[in-house]
Amino acid sequence: MIIILKDNPEEKQLDNLTQWLKSMDLDIHFSTGENTTIMGLIGDTSVVDIDLIMALDIVQAVKRISEPYKNVNRKFHPKDTIVDIAGNKIGGGNFQIIAGPCSVESKDQVCRIARDVKAAGAGLYRGGAFKPRTSPYAFQGMREEGINLLMEAKKESGLPIVTEVMDISHLHLFEDVDVIQVGARNMQNFELLKELGRMDKPVLLKRGLSSTLKEFLMSAEYIMAGGNEKVILCERGIRTFETATRNTLDLAAIPLLKEKTHLPVIVDPSHATGIASLVKPMAMAAAAAGADGLMIEVHNDPAHALCDGAQSLTPAQFADVVKAVNLILPHAFRG
Amino acid sequence: MIIILKDNPEEKQLDNLTQWLKSMDLDIHFSTGENTTIMGLIGDTSVVDIDLIMALDIVQAVKRISEPYKNVNRKFHPKDTIVDIAGNKIGGGNFQIIAGPCSVESKDQVCRIARDVKAAGAGLYRGGAFKPRTSPYAFQGMREEGINLLMEAKKESGLPIVTEVMDISHLHLFEDVDVIQVGARNMQNFELLKELGRMDKPVLLKRGLSSTLKEFLMSAEYIMAGGNEKVILCERGIRTFETATRNTLDLAAIPLLKEKTHLPVIVDPSHATGIASLVKPMAMAAAAAGADGLMIEVHNDPAHALCDGAQSLTPAQFADVVKAVNLILPHAFRG
Amino acid sequence: MIIILKDNPEEKQLDNLTQWLKSMDLDIHFSTGENTTIMGLIGDTSVVDIDLIMALDIVQAVKRISEPYKNVNRKFHPKDTIVDIAGNKIGGGNFQIIAGPCSVESKDQVCRIARDVKAAGAGLYRGGAFKPRTSPYAFQGMREEGINLLMEAKKESGLPIVTEVMDISHLHLFEDVDVIQVGARNMQNFELLKELGRMDKPVLLKRGLSSTLKEFLMSAEYIMAGGNEKVILCERGIRTFETATRNTLDLAAIPLLKEKTHLPVIVDPSHATGIASLVKPMAMAAAAAGADGLMIEVHNDPAHALCDGAQSLTPAQFADVVKAVNLILPHAFRG
Amino acid sequence: MIIILKDNPEEKQLDNLTQWLKSMDLDIHFSTGENTTIMGLIGDTSVVDIDLIMALDIVQAVKRISEPYKNVNRKFHPKDTIVDIAGNKIGGGNFQIIAGPCSVESKDQVCRIARDVKAAGAGLYRGGAFKPRTSPYAFQGMREEGINLLMEAKKESGLPIVTEVMDISHLHLFEDVDVIQVGARNMQNFELLKELGRMDKPVLLKRGLSSTLKEFLMSAEYIMAGGNEKVILCERGIRTFETATRNTLDLAAIPLLKEKTHLPVIVDPSHATGIASLVKPMAMAAAAAGADGLMIEVHNDPAHALCDGAQSLTPAQFADVVKAVNLILPHAFRG
Repeated sequence: MIIILKDNPEEKQLDNLTQWLKSMDLDIHFSTGENTTIMGLIGDTSVVDIDLIMALDIVQAVKRISEPYKNVNRKFHPKDTIVDIAGNKIGGGNFQIIAGPCSVESKDQVCRIARDVKAAGAGLYRGGAFKPRTSPYAFQGMREEGINLLMEAKKESGLPIVTEVMDISHLHLFEDVDVIQVGARNMQNFELLKELGRMDKPVLLKRGLSSTLKEFLMSAEYIMAGGNEKVILCERGIRTFETATRNTLDLAAIPLLKEKTHLPVIVDPSHATGIASLVKPMAMAAAAAGADGLMIEVHNDPAHALCDGAQSLTPAQFADVVKAVNLILPHAFRG
Repeated sequence: MIIILKDNPEEKQLDNLTQWLKSMDLDIHFSTGENTTIMGLIGDTSVVDIDLIMALDIVQAVKRISEPYKNVNRKFHPKDTIVDIAGNKIGGGNFQIIAGPCSVESKDQVCRIARDVKAAGAGLYRGGAFKPRTSPYAFQGMREEGINLLMEAKKESGLPIVTEVMDISHLHLFEDVDVIQVGARNMQNFELLKELGRMDKPVLLKRGLSSTLKEFLMSAEYIMAGGNEKVILCERGIRTFETATRNTLDLAAIPLLKEKTHLPVIVDPSHATGIASLVKPMAMAAAAAGADGLMIEVHNDPAHALCDGAQSLTPAQFADVVKAVNLILPHAFRG
Repeated sequence: MIIILKDNPEEKQLDNLTQWLKSMDLDIHFSTGENTTIMGLIGDTSVVDIDLIMALDIVQAVKRISEPYKNVNRKFHPKDTIVDIAGNKIGGGNFQIIAGPCSVESKDQVCRIARDVKAAGAGLYRGGAFKPRTSPYAFQGMREEGINLLMEAKKESGLPIVTEVMDISHLHLFEDVDVIQVGARNMQNFELLKELGRMDKPVLLKRGLSSTLKEFLMSAEYIMAGGNEKVILCERGIRTFETATRNTLDLAAIPLLKEKTHLPVIVDPSHATGIASLVKPMAMAAAAAGADGLMIEVHNDPAHALCDGAQSLTPAQFADVVKAVNLILPHAFRG
Repeated sequence: MIIILKDNPEEKQLDNLTQWLKSMDLDIHFSTGENTTIMGLIGDTSVVDIDLIMALDIVQAVKRISEPYKNVNRKFHPKDTIVDIAGNKIGGGNFQIIAGPCSVESKDQVCRIARDVKAAGAGLYRGGAFKPRTSPYAFQGMREEGINLLMEAKKESGLPIVTEVMDISHLHLFEDVDVIQVGARNMQNFELLKELGRMDKPVLLKRGLSSTLKEFLMSAEYIMAGGNEKVILCERGIRTFETATRNTLDLAAIPLLKEKTHLPVIVDPSHATGIASLVKPMAMAAAAAGADGLMIEVHNDPAHALCDGAQSLTPAQFADVVKAVNLILPHAFRG
């Protein structure tokens, strides 16, 4: 961490700052020029509150050099993390496709799609029981009953279940869920992240619509700091000025995240683009760029999906995507 | 709402769609050209799930004409809402300044600043007990104890208290809090919004970093749909490519929101800019543009603030801002 | 095009509007509900100035249904355009890699890299003679002399040359250049686009940093409207809030552009990311997503590149990228 | 400027770098920790090409501390620049309102509006002769004839003329124009900026849609580096995800720019918002925030404006805005 001081810093304040930094076991190197004094801090700066230093009268700027995260940092954990979900591994060279409907609607629907996506090659099953919807008047999901139906689908198909939690108070319903998903809007619901950090269950963390990769990793750090090491990151598009697609899928995030962290990184091309015809090429591109998996929305009858239908594939279209992705995988980018 | 059909829509599907729309008490007007058929829907379209229609094979595009919100809509409630907070009114020509420290740190600190900002002209007191912080290693707020200290400050100063809630499970601690703040990161924490909708307490809803005004209003609609009509909107900057300020303060949102809704709209120039020297000019600009109030961060000793110090004002600087704003107010924009 | 009228439109104004639209050979269909009247315009609406209609007192909103571009529109030209550059075809299943240094620096440099990238598999050679630089104090390119050196490299290597024009007044120097590049900052330099439209030479048009795909296509339409049909589109990243990469590479733009236009679409992963280690995975992803080519920055000695060095590959690294891309290509997305 | 080296930098490369920096008359201070070495450069670093250093193998990161601009920098020119336009001063406490139609359409139109805006209090007259339009099929302006008509309006009204140039090759037509405007799309048309730098005529430089304030100031620096000191900066909104307004007006840019530069800063609320009803509150807010002037679109008959009509005011509405702004001005923010 580097602290750039203002011209002619008040001596007593500088002294206070120096003492305080030393009290955190940091070594300080001064570099003094004609007009500018720079303090270089050596040591574990992840505990230093950057805003606190910025607030000081004598400070012009503060720049971090080392990353503010530790547990998710590949530097301190060079080997890929492999998350094992009931025998289905993800990360470290293991690729998984998570598929299923946006919303759980009925037992028949949820079981039929489970069979279909399993046959097509999906390794995990997703379905929304609790649905974050922009409008209070839109369908909010089947909630507890939706979770029960997902359990039926799991029993029938044998596929482990991924489903989204929206509030701490619902977590008790997720006991038999295999992977708990944190949606984009909750990526910085820090109380929820802390609670998930205390659990021993894989968490699929989706990137927030306006979150930098650093903030994304810090949210994963919240979970890992609590002791839960089973975190899967999911790039799902960011909000930009472009409106031709629902969001802008940031595929450079895959190799960049994998440089910075050992956690598995998957991609959700369905929500990112919001357009069914773009799911296949983006799934293929994600695989080529080195993603550890995909999350794809599939519906048996897109014409009747209760939400997000425009981006859903039929099981036949999904099978076609899986085939195309499987042809890319042997040639995909590996570090 | 307008539905634009694809060329040569399959007749049976079109029939299904028509029946379904009629079942929602909507009138349908067809406008058929050589290549394009347009359906105009007349009636209460706020209940129609736009994504569901978009998913239909025969549909090319769907466009809303009327707003998807009702309770917050000025069309159906032309008169300004005035929220009364222990006698301090906001909205409908009543202007309030909410001031206080980012974080509650000690009884002495919280009471001293309360006295200072009251003397300078603040009508409400803010302070953070629960703090949403990007890093799990940053100070997370004094939490329950912080709320208690705010109550002490209220007793001493007589100022009503505004403080942020981060999770439903903490709400029981907010009984004596006068205004519950929903932070930018929780603007789409829909479960929290629903819970606040069931309460009879003013809610200060901050705009999300990447939320459109429509989404902002929809989140207010969540609260009002539950029966709680005491909602105050707060513009606090959006995330853009510009990094010279922490966020980009969207002051055009003030008159635009006030055209669309009857709810009071206030502005937080401290968090929006993240730079102390910009708080005064942005407070003045917000007042000129017709804001119903301001939320300003004040600290007795910025050099020791535990968070967000760079944007805090001293009580003396705050008093100077209040004076400048008061000179603008008589000439401010009114509809 | 749909025009949504305000409630109770003034009759004479409505009459004027109707007459004016009819004078442009448009058919008008009225759809009148209780509160809303909708006009559907059928015919060639690409000539209608949407802002002009928006300005009318009686108009609430105007929405285009059909695209405002004609020449670039795949609807009216379903077959892929193939641009032939001295025998090197691009588009319609023909994939080309354009490689070379950011800036032309010396005869030795420019010829050596040309030999290297040709050996590695590049089909065209790029090099900057005129350089758009943010700072007036940064190296502005060798300009006319740079073009001459590129011609030497062409003679030696046999590779056709792609280089950027920055102003109409320099165009006379580009006579022997094979492809004229329009940089991101000039994507809406309309006078330049018109001039290029009058030429019979391939134009490589880069997407502007803050341009929507629609605006991108409209800029291509400027060139085609002048009669020049040899336009190659290049996605090179857009400006977003994310700062981990220089720009955010929008790979969904590839299949989306190819749905909307018949023009070839290539990708520049070097400028998009600004990070050398991301060039390979993004090149592979672009190929997988169906791009018609790539533009990659290569330098013989990155430590001495005069600009943009951080994103340049050595010839050896470039050869490795070409190999990886060639393994992806047979399995790439095709419509 | 600070250079952060990678761990264990190769000695010879470090030596080369050090020599090269010293050759630019820079003092270097080393700060060496256990893992990190930091070089602090003292001296005139505005000539240092940051990308060139970034490209070196041994460099991890480079951070500028001092600004890369000199001529526009308030540090080196603390006094406000006052631009005198035929006796109408702008900057240094002098406030000017520039008003007029988006496009010049006819002699009658252009002269009538000139009289009207002068009567209402405008100090300069604007009108578009060359029009940058997204579509090649939209009205492109009256061009040379438009300039002639503006000269007629100048003769009649006595108001100095501001109008936009789109290409160097048209500059000869601007001899009698009082202020040459550079539009947002040309803010980084560096060849044009250099040419304007060689002229002795005020330039009104509009901020690019996706330009940071630093880039904005660097473009002004291009003009000043050529010797032309009469530069007026104009904030006109940036492109963000929000679509409720055409662009997002960044009013914090006013005080921030004025901290960093001595140049006058004005605001264009018409183009920024694209909505007539927002022009007044944003004009008032801009004045309150300390702007040195405004640029407002006025049309005698908005229903027939040839472009951008939705944001135009009638002369009567404009007069109302001027009155409201004049009430704010005595209380406006001053540093």
